[in-house]
Amino acid sequence: MVAKHLVDVIRGGIVESEHWGHIAVVNSEGKLIYSNGNPNRVTFARSSMKPLQAIPIVETGAADFYQFSQADLSLTCASHNGEDQHTNRVRMILKNLDESIDSLKCGTHPPRWQEKYEELMISGKEVTAEYNNCSGKHCGMLSTAKFMGESLEDYYKINHPVQRRIVEVISDLCEIPLDEIEIGIDGCGVPVHGIPLKKLALGFAKLANPASLPAKRKQAIERITSAMMEEPEMVGGTNRFCTDFMKIEKGRMFGKAGAEGVYCIGDIETGIGIAIKIEDGNGRATSSVAVEVLKQLNLITEEQSKLLKEYHYPELKNARQEVIGQLRPSFSLENA
Amino acid sequence: MVAKHLVDVIRGGIVESEHWGHIAVVNSEGKLIYSNGNPNRVTFARSSMKPLQAIPIVETGAADFYQFSQADLSLTCASHNGEDQHTNRVRMILKNLDESIDSLKCGTHPPRWQEKYEELMISGKEVTAEYNNCSGKHCGMLSTAKFMGESLEDYYKINHPVQRRIVEVISDLCEIPLDEIEIGIDGCGVPVHGIPLKKLALGFAKLANPASLPAKRKQAIERITSAMMEEPEMVGGTNRFCTDFMKIEKGRMFGKAGAEGVYCIGDIETGIGIAIKIEDGNGRATSSVAVEVLKQLNLITEEQSKLLKEYHYPELKNARQEVIGQLRPSFSLENA
Repeated sequence: MVAKHLVDVIRGGIVESEHWGHIAVVNSEGKLIYSNGNPNRVTFARSSMKPLQAIPIVETGAADFYQFSQADLSLTCASHNGEDQHTNRVRMILKNLDESIDSLKCGTHPPRWQEKYEELMISGKEVTAEYNNCSGKHCGMLSTAKFMGESLEDYYKINHPVQRRIVEVISDLCEIPLDEIEIGIDGCGVPVHGIPLKKLALGFAKLANPASLPAKRKQAIERITSAMMEEPEMVGGTNRFCTDFMKIEKGRMFGKAGAEGVYCIGDIETGIGIAIKIEDGNGRATSSVAVEVLKQLNLITEEQSKLLKEYHYPELKNARQEVIGQLRPSFSLENA
Repeated sequence: MVAKHLVDVIRGGIVESEHWGHIAVVNSEGKLIYSNGNPNRVTFARSSMKPLQAIPIVETGAADFYQFSQADLSLTCASHNGEDQHTNRVRMILKNLDESIDSLKCGTHPPRWQEKYEELMISGKEVTAEYNNCSGKHCGMLSTAKFMGESLEDYYKINHPVQRRIVEVISDLCEIPLDEIEIGIDGCGVPVHGIPLKKLALGFAKLANPASLPAKRKQAIERITSAMMEEPEMVGGTNRFCTDFMKIEKGRMFGKAGAEGVYCIGDIETGIGIAIKIEDGNGRATSSVAVEVLKQLNLITEEQSKLLKEYHYPELKNARQEVIGQLRPSFSLENA
């Protein structure tokens, strides 16, 4: 089954481009209730997997031993902007670990937050690994390796215990055998996990309602999702959908973007899990689809959707700062 | 007719994302010979229209009066990197026009060439309109307005004679009535033109073989396409497909990218015109499709396609500079 038409990109009153993709909505019983496109589309969750990747930080005891605050834990689930609020915290975590920036194996890229990038250039400072949007996740991985007495140099490699624990969590929560999980390499060098989209939605349903899970895992999950919702600035930052969405949801829902057009949401109140994949991989369309899905499921109020308007109907501006286009969702959820 | 599957984005051995789109190939008689997807897809040509937008610069006499060199003319067809080679030339053209940077109404954005952006930041210099990738085109528009004694403040507006001359050229070359051309606003504030993809390919076929056109237009076209092919560095710059493609083609073909996934090519030798639109608007897939089309049409040699390998099969690298994925064309041209 091919992708379905999800979003129009409007310019000059006509459709300039279209985004097609897939949506899977799973209820608290683990049943697929809505699906557009192909719910079995094997999808690299990319950074949407971060809340699951954080579970071993708590379960191993590393989070307690290194006294991870809620904000620290939220940062381990982040694709952050590289603002001071993020990088200062990365350095604090590394200090608690008695490790340096060089211990992070994520590589470097300019901070997503343009002002910070320009500030670094102007002041002649180096763009180090702390500005990598995944540096919080790498701090978490490093902390479990160190706490467990494992090698630190290669914590990012597929056969390292850090990565084995993560893939086992994914296999368990998403109910997919280990040998059916596709593996690739992420933008920051660690393994990424490819699973059917409906399994990804199931994973988020379990994060939203972990009642059926063993106490230890339930507790770890609740600590992580609470951290994301209590400290949403850590997950993205200024002008980021994940952050602004969780601020507006005030502890009811958590959401996480992934590269190549992925977005996942868990709703604590209903136990619903949602997974979205834009087939062409363009992240510009994900927030528009996410808000529209919540609206059609009646999971957000009219007022909330108004507050999210800039993400629901993102505007395109030109170099003269004129609004010259807009993204508009163009789908109806289909019963699975 | 919907878009067709054109390119796979591979990661970890599986297809992470797909790009779908449309292709139209028109021969020198103006006949559509191949089409994938919908050749009637109304498409904003965006910057692919620049060679046509340059025609009035020559036809009005502005290019001669202000002594435009071949490199200057090539720059008016550019979506350039904002390297010194581009901005120095923008300033030279403006000097010949006795105008300043403030006369350019394109707005500003950081130069595409990252090193230049960092250099500007480090040296505390302002990002002015000259770094806008369209500043060459705006120099051309300004030159015709000034030469014709028209107002300079509003040359970018749809009803200004500069823009009227351009839309008339498009109507003529692409054989589409003026009132059937859709109008939007481009990233640099000027009108963009939406026409069926096969008409865009027809326009490029006429650019490639203008033999049937009136002498004045034929001469203007030959001067512009020669300029692009003789001075390909001006059209894009370092590490840009348009530039490297035209260097390898050595005067046989010209190509121009447009935003939202557009690419157009004209082949002087056969008179063939090619127009490509990636439905989702992602420019990362266009060079891959373009080289593959040329290969399937036997318009490039094995050796040339090898030299273009990085554009034919673009690699994806992560922040650790590891190759973690690749784009691969996945289509066969279909007879129209």
